[in-house]
Amino acid sequence: MADQYAQNQAGAEPPKLPVLRWDEPPEGPVLVLLDQTRLPAEEVELVCTDVPALVRAIRTLAVRGAPVLGIAGAYGVALAAVRGFDVEEAVELLETARPTAVNLGYGVRLAASAYRTALAQGGDTVQAATAALTAAKELHRTDAESSRRMAVHGLEFLEELLPGGGHRILTHCNTGALVSGGEGTAFAVALSAHRAGRLRRLWVDETRPLLQGSRLTAYEAARNGLPYTLLTDNAAGSLFAAGEVDAVLIGADRIAADGSVANKVGSYPLAVLAKYHHVPFIVVAPTTTVDLTTPDGAAIEVEQRPGHEVTEVTSPQSAAAGAGSGGLSVAPLGTQAYNPAFDVTPPDLVTAIVTEEGVLSPVTGGGIAELCARSRQVTIS
Amino acid sequence: MADQYAQNQAGAEPPKLPVLRWDEPPEGPVLVLLDQTRLPAEEVELVCTDVPALVRAIRTLAVRGAPVLGIAGAYGVALAAVRGFDVEEAVELLETARPTAVNLGYGVRLAASAYRTALAQGGDTVQAATAALTAAKELHRTDAESSRRMAVHGLEFLEELLPGGGHRILTHCNTGALVSGGEGTAFAVALSAHRAGRLRRLWVDETRPLLQGSRLTAYEAARNGLPYTLLTDNAAGSLFAAGEVDAVLIGADRIAADGSVANKVGSYPLAVLAKYHHVPFIVVAPTTTVDLTTPDGAAIEVEQRPGHEVTEVTSPQSAAAGAGSGGLSVAPLGTQAYNPAFDVTPPDLVTAIVTEEGVLSPVTGGGIAELCARSRQVTIS
Repeated sequence: MADQYAQNQAGAEPPKLPVLRWDEPPEGPVLVLLDQTRLPAEEVELVCTDVPALVRAIRTLAVRGAPVLGIAGAYGVALAAVRGFDVEEAVELLETARPTAVNLGYGVRLAASAYRTALAQGGDTVQAATAALTAAKELHRTDAESSRRMAVHGLEFLEELLPGGGHRILTHCNTGALVSGGEGTAFAVALSAHRAGRLRRLWVDETRPLLQGSRLTAYEAARNGLPYTLLTDNAAGSLFAAGEVDAVLIGADRIAADGSVANKVGSYPLAVLAKYHHVPFIVVAPTTTVDLTTPDGAAIEVEQRPGHEVTEVTSPQSAAAGAGSGGLSVAPLGTQAYNPAFDVTPPDLVTAIVTEEGVLSPVTGGGIAELCARSRQVTIS
Repeated sequence: MADQYAQNQAGAEPPKLPVLRWDEPPEGPVLVLLDQTRLPAEEVELVCTDVPALVRAIRTLAVRGAPVLGIAGAYGVALAAVRGFDVEEAVELLETARPTAVNLGYGVRLAASAYRTALAQGGDTVQAATAALTAAKELHRTDAESSRRMAVHGLEFLEELLPGGGHRILTHCNTGALVSGGEGTAFAVALSAHRAGRLRRLWVDETRPLLQGSRLTAYEAARNGLPYTLLTDNAAGSLFAAGEVDAVLIGADRIAADGSVANKVGSYPLAVLAKYHHVPFIVVAPTTTVDLTTPDGAAIEVEQRPGHEVTEVTSPQSAAAGAGSGGLSVAPLGTQAYNPAFDVTPPDLVTAIVTEEGVLSPVTGGGIAELCARSRQVTIS
């Protein structure tokens, strides 16, 4: 990490957010996370000394976003191993912390596999723990590299689709440096369009119920000097109708073998609006997001989250107060809420999937299989 | 109003909400409004002794909803007249308080016309003020009757469209007793389906940014014992995809001569989703909502509201604190927001418009003209 900081200080870019880092203070190794529930009000680090603390951080979305969950999962296994906890129990706890996030399981299995292989090859638990940690660090590094490559491929694709620049891009949820070992997925493409002088406007959906757009994407956009405007998710329709959106760029939490995309709730309505208005709907995600064992959209398990996320509104201030739900009630007592975390967009509504291995357009099951075959990472899983 | 209370006390229904009432205490006549910004936390009345206070109540959405704005506007003119203020100035202030709401202007002009006619016929200002007040009270009464007739027509239409009952209805914003002299528009249809044992579920969109769904529709649904479930506006797409929505029922703030419908932002995306999923999209609104001087959707002026409604979240508690914006900040300082109050749905996405004069389906300019010709109310305007 020291190199990275030095590099950033030299350039004009704002300092890289320490979204997640492995640290080894005298008291023993820890995984340090930037508490995303407190952004943008304050940058507070959360120090995890064991896996239950990390699982809690994952469940409360203190750490969230597909790629970074994979990295956190891998470090979690390493943390259990290095500290001498039960590694298999840690694997189980971590794998089930958020059911829809395929990258989490991927990272967990990657580090667990390194650990088990070292043991099977006659290593002791210390050597096995080192192997798990090395695997986690390697995943962290390759994820940053993936992010860079997605940004390149994504910008090239945008230029092909919409020659001449001046792009007005609509995005949903948060897909920047906060979700990644690098600069993210969809947001990284918008950022690279901005650096190339080709971004006219980033439209940021607030992304209810947890407002990752307002809290996190607006924060990253402001830090990076992007021209951005925030809107309620409801107002996206008006932008489409007014011809103010050239492309939708989103991330993904899981991509099924047929190309169906599970992403933050609200993505599917955007895909339908984009189709209706003939606007490209582009998914940006590393190939680790593809789960070939999930045949199609119907087979994707969608996490249902607690109703109080809808019946109460929270802000970073109220979250900081530390109450269980912590929000201000906006609905009558006893109101039931339907609160799926994700929705599923079928492949026929997806113009393209941009990965670190290249761009798939149109999106087909065959194309997905080919992309995965090209990626060494997926063959590990 | 005494009759109404007696009637409600006799039946099994909850007492009617005093959404708006004319009162004449010893200190002089006043217009008393239920402060909708404080619901559902508390039922607080706002007493307006002059038009500027009423305009403030309209602008802050303490009173909102198309039909009730018309009634409030008419009473506002009467209030100015009865208290001896400048009536023409009051008319101007009230007419421009919310640009998209056609009913507001309708009610204002109705009372102003009664006032002017009385003067023109040789009456003094006291007689003219009485004429304005009588017109306002008559509008209040006929609006309640309109509401009852819309509920009857709407339920009949639902039964035709979806025989057998068990309806799962999605609604947006608030269209119940809080917006009307009676039981409302779209909500009144759902309520009458419930009373007829034909409502399986009312899906209530929370309706960002001001959460009229969570705060007001959930409140009215709970008061009336409806089976309801709240959701973020984002989650509606998942319900459609799962086949859980049989019909969308919404109100309208303005209907253009071609049948384009301006309604709370988020209505248009629901119309596109409904079309994509072959689900009926039904608008329920009195004929006073039709503005024949607005030829089409493009001609509808859409009110842009302050950005802090998006960059901050408020709850009835924070509103009660009385701060200017009063919310908890959720976005970085300096974030710009796009915050249209309404959007416009073109007639080809609207399955039907249900009015007190009957149901128009399909929605055409000719049909709109015919409906209006049938309505005595519109010819007054």
